[in-house]
Amino acid sequence: MTKEDLPMQLFYSPGACSRASHIALEETGAKFEAIRIDFTSGTQNSPEYLAINPKGRVPALVAGPGTLTETSAILAWVAQAHPEAGLAPTDPWDFAQMQSFNAYLASTVHVNHAHGRRGARWTDDPAAQEGMRAKVGPNMTACFTYIETLLDKGPWVMGAQYTVADPYLFTVSGWLKSDGVDIADFPRTSAHREAMLARPAVQAVLARESA
Amino acid sequence: MTKEDLPMQLFYSPGACSRASHIALEETGAKFEAIRIDFTSGTQNSPEYLAINPKGRVPALVAGPGTLTETSAILAWVAQAHPEAGLAPTDPWDFAQMQSFNAYLASTVHVNHAHGRRGARWTDDPAAQEGMRAKVGPNMTACFTYIETLLDKGPWVMGAQYTVADPYLFTVSGWLKSDGVDIADFPRTSAHREAMLARPAVQAVLARESA
Repeated sequence: MTKEDLPMQLFYSPGACSRASHIALEETGAKFEAIRIDFTSGTQNSPEYLAINPKGRVPALVAGPGTLTETSAILAWVAQAHPEAGLAPTDPWDFAQMQSFNAYLASTVHVNHAHGRRGARWTDDPAAQEGMRAKVGPNMTACFTYIETLLDKGPWVMGAQYTVADPYLFTVSGWLKSDGVDIADFPRTSAHREAMLARPAVQAVLARESA
Repeated sequence: MTKEDLPMQLFYSPGACSRASHIALEETGAKFEAIRIDFTSGTQNSPEYLAINPKGRVPALVAGPGTLTETSAILAWVAQAHPEAGLAPTDPWDFAQMQSFNAYLASTVHVNHAHGRRGARWTDDPAAQEGMRAKVGPNMTACFTYIETLLDKGPWVMGAQYTVADPYLFTVSGWLKSDGVDIADFPRTSAHREAMLARPAVQAVLARESA
């Protein structure tokens, strides 16, 4: 048995952005092991986990060649390593647009959300952290107002084709409630969420996260 | 002349993260038009520019098929659309690692830097913005301490092959001084910067930005 024959390992935390990679892997039908990292006990900063991912974050995907981090990179690799699953456009320009969507979720939307509970990343001042929390709702509202304009084709982010952008959007739209934003204000995002919840891969991952 | 025959247009602002895409395009030898967006006069929020990029940010790349935004997506597309320039690994896993590096620069390092002068994105409270500024230096130091561990092969981010990750690292390491961090504390990053400054494409872009 070579290293390449070992099943992949996905390190995840329930509700975190790792859900996107988790669903994407589940959609491929590939064999992988989902390993839970308990943020409440600080496992992400244990020496054992930092040896896997020095960033102390999830997701981390351990595959034959090594460890891969960052959601948008994992999602694209999962799609490209399992072409039979059809989880990414084959046209280079369309692929780039999918990557652009995922990059926006990672660099702008996730970052805006993180100012609610992870404000200590950017300031040690508790009053300043409180000041950040006040803008999370308005910022997420602005982001999803823009995202609605991108979902004009539907039913999926890229139109007719279901891609790895869909589990990522599903993951991030799942944070709106805790950000004080009513998803009902965004009809296309709401419809996307319902369509995702009907997929067996999504149901399997949500059940695993809740177990 | 079809739309695909028109030269590409890159919208940039001097010193901004658009520098990475700008250098990558220059490295390909492809014909493109570099269009400056003046942030000091708020041109990024003009109706004309918002019609091109509703996010009001740079970079935006207008090519035959449409408009592409987000640095990591633009960089990957530029590399893939110009395979003869060899600006990305062809092995899928190595390509994913390059994307992971670029995603880290976009979602973590650029975001940390942005808390210095763009704090109003995340709070309207001037005192909280001041609190954010205090942590920019320590956060950038932590990021580049980690990046140094990734530059162990050299001379480029991916080792022997020069890729689109290099102009992106060059762009972000160029912000350290204004963040109050001495690049000399990071010998591999310093050597990378020197190697980049010797490249004609980098010199051409810096000259164009300064013109």
